[in-house]
Amino acid sequence: MEERLKLSFLFDFYGALLTDKQRQCFEMYLFQDLSFAEIAEEMGISRQAVYDMVHRSRQTLEEYEGKLCLVSRYKNITKALNDVFTQVASLETSDNSEQIAAVLKKIEPFLDNREV
Amino acid sequence: MEERLKLSFLFDFYGALLTDKQRQCFEMYLFQDLSFAEIAEEMGISRQAVYDMVHRSRQTLEEYEGKLCLVSRYKNITKALNDVFTQVASLETSDNSEQIAAVLKKIEPFLDNREV
Repeated sequence: MEERLKLSFLFDFYGALLTDKQRQCFEMYLFQDLSFAEIAEEMGISRQAVYDMVHRSRQTLEEYEGKLCLVSRYKNITKALNDVFTQVASLETSDNSEQIAAVLKKIEPFLDNREV
Repeated sequence: MEERLKLSFLFDFYGALLTDKQRQCFEMYLFQDLSFAEIAEEMGISRQAVYDMVHRSRQTLEEYEGKLCLVSRYKNITKALNDVFTQVASLETSDNSEQIAAVLKKIEPFLDNREV
């Protein structure tokens, strides 16, 4: 899986376990795509401190996933649900279209558009 | 939700974050249904130490759920999947029974028989 995507999953699941500063720094790095120098300026710390914080945050997130495997459990469910969605959609006939729509609507909130 | 069931979910999700001793103690308390006195004897520690360990473990598990909400996310998915399973099963006709069976088989591993 692409590196940035992997980190976004880890952050999504375990980000709440980082400190506020780590989270703020990691979000700028991951989602705002700022450079270490730009984050350093934003946070009023050195470039090296930003590098260390990103590195440490990433380690923390990976350690939690190593123990809990929740991202991989979630991906298994999501992958199966994507298949279920497609398979259920293919069952549609003129007789059952309302029921099919109801089932698909129920599955939809749990699909993940990120490649899993 | 019933207390013991709630703890079993918490333990299932976050148990790996307890220390080995905490996990061992909590398992005896939760799954083997031993009394504090019995666990104390088994572990060679005092009854009070068992009480404290169970209490502390439980706090730890609840703190993780407070931050990550993964048990409640999981329950939302599982509840929806139980409904999807029933709804898909009700779509069966003589023409689509093989496809229906295939979809149900895909959902089945993710159902949770515990009341959620």
